[in-house]
Amino acid sequence: MSGRIHNEALRSKVMSAPDAAALVRNGWNIGFSGFTGAGYPKDFPEALAGRIDAAHHQGEEFKVNVLTGASTAPELDGALARTGGINFRAPYQSDPEMRSAINKGISYYSDIHLSHMGPQVSQGFLGKMDLAVIEVTAITEDGELIPSSSVGMNRTYLDYADKVILEVNEWQSEELRGMHDIYYPIGALPPNRVPLPILTPSDRIGQLTLKVDPEKIIAIIVTDSPDRNTPFKPLDHDSKAIAGHLLDFLSNEVKQGRMPKNLLPMQSGVGNIANAVLAGLLEGPFENMTSYTEVIQDGMVDLLDSGKMRVASATAFSLSPTAAERLNNNAKDYRDKIILRPQDVSNHPEAIRRMGVIACNGMIEADIYGNVNSTHVMGSRMQNGIGGSGDFTRNGYFSSFVTPSTAKGGAISCIVPMVNHVDHTEHDVSVIITEQGLADLRGLAPRQRAKLIIENCAHPSFKEPLREYVKLAEKVANGLHTPHDLESALSWHIRFLKTGTMVS
Amino acid sequence: MSGRIHNEALRSKVMSAPDAAALVRNGWNIGFSGFTGAGYPKDFPEALAGRIDAAHHQGEEFKVNVLTGASTAPELDGALARTGGINFRAPYQSDPEMRSAINKGISYYSDIHLSHMGPQVSQGFLGKMDLAVIEVTAITEDGELIPSSSVGMNRTYLDYADKVILEVNEWQSEELRGMHDIYYPIGALPPNRVPLPILTPSDRIGQLTLKVDPEKIIAIIVTDSPDRNTPFKPLDHDSKAIAGHLLDFLSNEVKQGRMPKNLLPMQSGVGNIANAVLAGLLEGPFENMTSYTEVIQDGMVDLLDSGKMRVASATAFSLSPTAAERLNNNAKDYRDKIILRPQDVSNHPEAIRRMGVIACNGMIEADIYGNVNSTHVMGSRMQNGIGGSGDFTRNGYFSSFVTPSTAKGGAISCIVPMVNHVDHTEHDVSVIITEQGLADLRGLAPRQRAKLIIENCAHPSFKEPLREYVKLAEKVANGLHTPHDLESALSWHIRFLKTGTMVS
Ligand SMILES: CC(C)(COP(=O)(O)OP(=O)(O)OC[C@H]1O[C@@H](n2cnc3c(N)ncnc32)[C@H](O)[C@@H]1OP(=O)(O)O)[C@@H](O)C(=O)NCCC(=O)NCCS
Ligand SMILES: CC(C)(COP(=O)(O)OP(=O)(O)OC[C@H]1O[C@@H](n2cnc3c(N)ncnc32)[C@H](O)[C@@H]1OP(=O)(O)O)[C@@H](O)C(=O)NCCC(=O)NCCS
Repeated sequence: MSGRIHNEALRSKVMSAPDAAALVRNGWNIGFSGFTGAGYPKDFPEALAGRIDAAHHQGEEFKVNVLTGASTAPELDGALARTGGINFRAPYQSDPEMRSAINKGISYYSDIHLSHMGPQVSQGFLGKMDLAVIEVTAITEDGELIPSSSVGMNRTYLDYADKVILEVNEWQSEELRGMHDIYYPIGALPPNRVPLPILTPSDRIGQLTLKVDPEKIIAIIVTDSPDRNTPFKPLDHDSKAIAGHLLDFLSNEVKQGRMPKNLLPMQSGVGNIANAVLAGLLEGPFENMTSYTEVIQDGMVDLLDSGKMRVASATAFSLSPTAAERLNNNAKDYRDKIILRPQDVSNHPEAIRRMGVIACNGMIEADIYGNVNSTHVMGSRMQNGIGGSGDFTRNGYFSSFVTPSTAKGGAISCIVPMVNHVDHTEHDVSVIITEQGLADLRGLAPRQRAKLIIENCAHPSFKEPLREYVKLAEKVANGLHTPHDLESALSWHIRFLKTGTMVS
Repeated sequence: MSGRIHNEALRSKVMSAPDAAALVRNGWNIGFSGFTGAGYPKDFPEALAGRIDAAHHQGEEFKVNVLTGASTAPELDGALARTGGINFRAPYQSDPEMRSAINKGISYYSDIHLSHMGPQVSQGFLGKMDLAVIEVTAITEDGELIPSSSVGMNRTYLDYADKVILEVNEWQSEELRGMHDIYYPIGALPPNRVPLPILTPSDRIGQLTLKVDPEKIIAIIVTDSPDRNTPFKPLDHDSKAIAGHLLDFLSNEVKQGRMPKNLLPMQSGVGNIANAVLAGLLEGPFENMTSYTEVIQDGMVDLLDSGKMRVASATAFSLSPTAAERLNNNAKDYRDKIILRPQDVSNHPEAIRRMGVIACNGMIEADIYGNVNSTHVMGSRMQNGIGGSGDFTRNGYFSSFVTPSTAKGGAISCIVPMVNHVDHTEHDVSVIITEQGLADLRGLAPRQRAKLIIENCAHPSFKEPLREYVKLAEKVANGLHTPHDLESALSWHIRFLKTGTMVS
């Protein structure tokens, strides 16, 4: 029995994960906590997977819809996807088993902007929520919940679900208490929505705890398991070069008077390259920085430790195992530097636009006209999802996208004639960066962008084929605004599918 | 000499349009007033075109950059485009001559979200502004400006341009005074931006006039010319059917408790179909409606006249000649029902998201997975531009797109396997409507959307080919999330370019 449950009455609801899983019915719409490998329930999903497997062995239909904050970990997405029992998944995932179920057509996946998820659930667009399963650090005497290493969609799921299961995870440091900022008015529906009173990343506007109607709690599970995130790849030449180009660009913006000396709040996306950019900032000339972002990666913690960054606002941690351990052991020291908010606050267009956040996200590929694909491989396969990249890209001061110029050992050019899927339109992309260089697309027309992107960003081995595409397209196109030869626009992807390489 | 210029000192700056045009230099970045055929300068652009033609006849280089609020009219875009002297154009246009210059590669065009235009100019991303040319209704005694039939980018251009030319247009009713709401803090740069204090479309938050530094005024031109907008097409069977589907959908949303009885503020895009939807609302069951939109079309004025709509907030009129005349003659009667704001307020993500605006916009085509193309014809040709459709689509309560199911007499299907350009991604599109029916895409995965869009929205003559595409794609695709056959995904467009029809 956990000493983390300070509310007497709720102690009686403690049970084993399998007993809790037995309460679930076929077809339920379940909202899970969890955001980029942080704060997801650790035991319940595997127990539910067992229940689904057992039903399937009996020949019974058993499927559930899995809604989360964002990606989770093998214990949640992996365990449930493996059963084939996920009917529907939203809004973001990055687990190999989950990805496979989506791409095999076993699970339906709706790839929703993270800032849209709260409103869509509250507005009733995703159906009735049957159950919320939420990891917490502790339960207070008066039955309020101390959130754990992510906040994500928890407020919304707790408010809208008919029933609630809590996982009290004793691995999470009790000193996370005080790090969260839960702003309840964000859940209002129009015409009752009010301005979001955040002016700067350090503004605290809400309360420290999550509220829950105790009547809805049907089970409490006690666990002691670490968040599980994959470690970042060590910095290599390419990622350092990309970070260098961005730093030079930022320095010049400051010099031109287009940005304050301490920059504007930084947003940094998921993935290795985004983490490398943060490492670059550690070496850079900027002091007194702030961050208004979605996830706190290793590089962000280093920036806070160094004193170069003053405060970071996010909705979740996304730390390597060693960084997670370090943070967990020193949570108290970070409480005045880190604020974790609900994802409909961390990713809110209103806040991002007002503060002029500098957006920096990874991508799969960009095309010569500045359209960006963050999600699809060769037209049909889902990689992860758009996550919050659209929230920050559309609303930021300006938006940048980073990728190595090639993938799969040089077989794939990440700069292509036409992207195979568009997540960020030409209207939204300000800057593209590869290890080769940087293309500043602000105020440029498509043909001007093409020149810059090819000459500055494409890998040398793909530059000439791209130039040839432009030449051909300008000859055959039905208009010279965005010249395309529709017959060969996707031919690089087709070639890759047929031959395993885009090189002809 | 105009009695509209109440400031003594400024009267001395009155001159002819050609004299004013003579002050312009090659290469200038010029910000013009004008938004969907309303409030653009009427005489200066033609005089400038004359000056450019003369320079070209002398063999001199003479080009300017033309920035506006949105589209203008033949007297501005047409006159200047015809000279070949527009080097760069942003952010929206719909004039045949301008379109032709863009598609012939004579003019560069950057198709920018209308809500991004203010920030991009203020942030210095579009370069130094040399000149603002702004139509006004009158100049007050203390030198402030009474705006005319559009506000658009005027505040920003007046603030940022080095020099200013005013056109005082006596055709504009003096009783427009009192209709405008100019909110100055919207121009603040981060970290000094503050919440936009609009809670409901009728909120007035600014002042009635535009400010200008009198030192910057280099010329004032007096004109007496009407705004020139093309009349709307009469309602036909298709547009009535589309309006009917949307009305049924809205009624059901109210019935399901997902929307208040008087709906939420409506946004209605440009074009004939959008206007038809407004006509549909006139017949519909909803009372006490409001609108938070970009342009006030004929149908919106009818709704205000009928009493079914209480108030409409926009940045410009977009009226047929008869409706413009009617409004101009009775401007006083509309002053408490219509508010014209700067476009960075009318289209602000913050306001749109907070109020839960219902977005409804026209489109060129949608694909089976819910991506929408608003701008490009067959891959390369620019039609008009994205305008404000992205501002409303991304941030609204939900977003809908309307189009007849076919174009060019049935030769083109407006539902295709893959759109030839993406302006609104699958993440942003809630509802697609043609005369055939409505597809409610909320909470659906791509394969589910495809079924609905094909069965509910495609024209009967294209249904079977679309079903066949899906069958083929599911067989050959490298993943079943968004099954595509990249070899034939764009084949319908290619066929049209080769044979003049998408029918095989
Ligand atoms: C785009 C994204 C996948 C890149 O992540 P990353 O860790 O920097 O990228 P990697 O280089 O490790 O690439 C991931 C995979 O995509 C593959 N890939 C990269 N570019 C590719 C391309 N152009 N075509 C095909 N595959 C490509 C890589 O080979 C790798 O494949 P593997 O897993 O089989 O090894 C990641 O940033 C993402 O999911 N973005 C979308 C969500 C987002 O931006 N969130 C931020 C919100 S705040
Ligand atoms: C998309 C848009 C052009 C439709 O406008 P509309 O007046 O309803 O449309 P029309 O049916 O008259 O079509 C306009 C032209 O496109 C052509 N067209 C329509 N669908 C087409 C398709 N799928 N493929 C090729 N051409 C197509 C029409 O034939 C017509 O051509 P024409 O001018 O040569 O006769 C218009 O809504 C627009 O510009 N939208 C983008 C901006 C926007 O949404 N603004 C709102 C902001 S609040």
